[in-house]
Amino acid sequence: MVTVRAPGKVILYGEHAVVYGEPALAMAVNKYIYVTAKARDDNKVSINARDLRLAGISVTIHENGDIVARTDYGAVISALSYVKRAVELAMEYFNKKVGIDLMIRSEMPVGAGLGTSAAVAVATILAYVKELGYDVDKRELARLAWQVERDVQGSASPTDTTMATFGGIMYIKPEGNSTAMEPVKPGVTIPLIIGYTPRVSTTKDLVAMVRRKYESMRDVIEPIIRSIGVITRKGREALEKGDLELMGVLMNINHGLLDALGVSTKQLNEMVYVARYAGALGSKLTGAGGGGCMIALTNKSEVEKAIELTGGSVLKAGLDTDGTVVISND
Amino acid sequence: MVTVRAPGKVILYGEHAVVYGEPALAMAVNKYIYVTAKARDDNKVSINARDLRLAGISVTIHENGDIVARTDYGAVISALSYVKRAVELAMEYFNKKVGIDLMIRSEMPVGAGLGTSAAVAVATILAYVKELGYDVDKRELARLAWQVERDVQGSASPTDTTMATFGGIMYIKPEGNSTAMEPVKPGVTIPLIIGYTPRVSTTKDLVAMVRRKYESMRDVIEPIIRSIGVITRKGREALEKGDLELMGVLMNINHGLLDALGVSTKQLNEMVYVARYAGALGSKLTGAGGGGCMIALTNKSEVEKAIELTGGSVLKAGLDTDGTVVISND
Repeated sequence: MVTVRAPGKVILYGEHAVVYGEPALAMAVNKYIYVTAKARDDNKVSINARDLRLAGISVTIHENGDIVARTDYGAVISALSYVKRAVELAMEYFNKKVGIDLMIRSEMPVGAGLGTSAAVAVATILAYVKELGYDVDKRELARLAWQVERDVQGSASPTDTTMATFGGIMYIKPEGNSTAMEPVKPGVTIPLIIGYTPRVSTTKDLVAMVRRKYESMRDVIEPIIRSIGVITRKGREALEKGDLELMGVLMNINHGLLDALGVSTKQLNEMVYVARYAGALGSKLTGAGGGGCMIALTNKSEVEKAIELTGGSVLKAGLDTDGTVVISND
Repeated sequence: MVTVRAPGKVILYGEHAVVYGEPALAMAVNKYIYVTAKARDDNKVSINARDLRLAGISVTIHENGDIVARTDYGAVISALSYVKRAVELAMEYFNKKVGIDLMIRSEMPVGAGLGTSAAVAVATILAYVKELGYDVDKRELARLAWQVERDVQGSASPTDTTMATFGGIMYIKPEGNSTAMEPVKPGVTIPLIIGYTPRVSTTKDLVAMVRRKYESMRDVIEPIIRSIGVITRKGREALEKGDLELMGVLMNINHGLLDALGVSTKQLNEMVYVARYAGALGSKLTGAGGGGCMIALTNKSEVEKAIELTGGSVLKAGLDTDGTVVISND
């Protein structure tokens, strides 16, 4: 039986602008998806994922090799499709089909923009591989997990799977059709409080909405995108120098620009502002927006309380430097 | 006895950016400052301004020609200093000192960014002049009132006094050290709901704060300013074409950019967002920010209610096309 964890991530700067060639800065956080894998004697794949707020359901490998979930409960299928595809790809990669019991647990809200689906894919593949007694290079692991995301979603940025695999802080630079990721060494401990609310829009819809604005009034949107790019570059410098105050100022500006792009919500704005008023050095929505998460640069409990008072939920997070790791193997 | 009114104004697009050479679009609203003037037999100037939320106080013209308020109550002096200076300048301009009773009444919150001080200056001068039986050209009136604002504040944009004098909608183009104002003909009725809250920062402080950001990270702030400039130009086109929907979209983006500049507040954002959720075509803070006013492009009573529920006060406003006018003279 093997237990593996993989971290979630937040975007410090640059979401949405990264779609238009600007850099982004992502940070793996010490909140994890845990996957425990135990080989079975039969060829079934059973998934228990109560902590993903999904009913534990069981999925069977058919004789022809397909994995089919034995339920038609839409949301569950959708979340489990990452697990299903991860197992399929791992089986293909090692050309070996072994039935397995998977238990999945999350310390993060699922689908809130913290990269949980990528962490699920990474941890599932690694747990499966390890339980079978194999090994996998991290680059290969990240590649396979990215493939899972692309297969399930149609398209996906490699950011989330890279963060879940390697951890740390990465400077993401789109380069033509590919993406370069450069590890960044922070000059200071980054204290984050993450506030989250239910999402009302999908990433796909939000990206498409910004795209429509970009197409219809490029001369308005283009400078906003470029300004976010400069913020990300300055944010990286501030991070390396350990200038938390400047990081906060840049977060505040970045948030306003995301608001200008139309991806914020009333509740996100409220959490962002109460965090500042309660003493955070800066705050912004993180990820695609449309609900979901915000981050506040602080570790003050007043900020946690203030966010909770708006009706948001709170996670206190720090940097994860390890990426995915095996935490037990016996 | 003469009664004169002068309208307030809102900025539809471009506040703050106008300081950096970009255009702005201002609209006079059908909410007024009323000044009633009645010549006295003595040389006193008595000001009754209960509706400005000021105690009625009396001001005396000393023998040497100065007007000195007989109170040291700071806020009152500050608001009345516009009246005092307006009377002084009118006296100088016509080279005639006549004691006068002035009664001032406001339909707008004072000091919320709606240009009430300019409207007070314009209406006071016109009422005084008319009561003395003189006449004054509107261009001269606007010039004198602008002088009042500059004398009281140290510096002032000519926008508010121009709007209070001429009414309508003006496209404001900074040109070197001067400002060109071009009347704009709207292609449609502009329905506005104005929400307001107490201001926590002064215009002067907010302009200085944006200037510091501009100086310290020009490459971040400059594109924001330029984007606001494009929004104002597009907003003018949309207004002329009567495209209310586009006007709303542009307001929303403009608001986010003002938020990025750091001049919004939690309560302004809240009013701005509830207005959108309640069905406004668009909404933004208006004026310098730091509390004060927001506008929503709508006449829906749901939007009024929604703003009131956040704790804000509401004014329903339309376009004023007349500027300052004499409404009774007997």
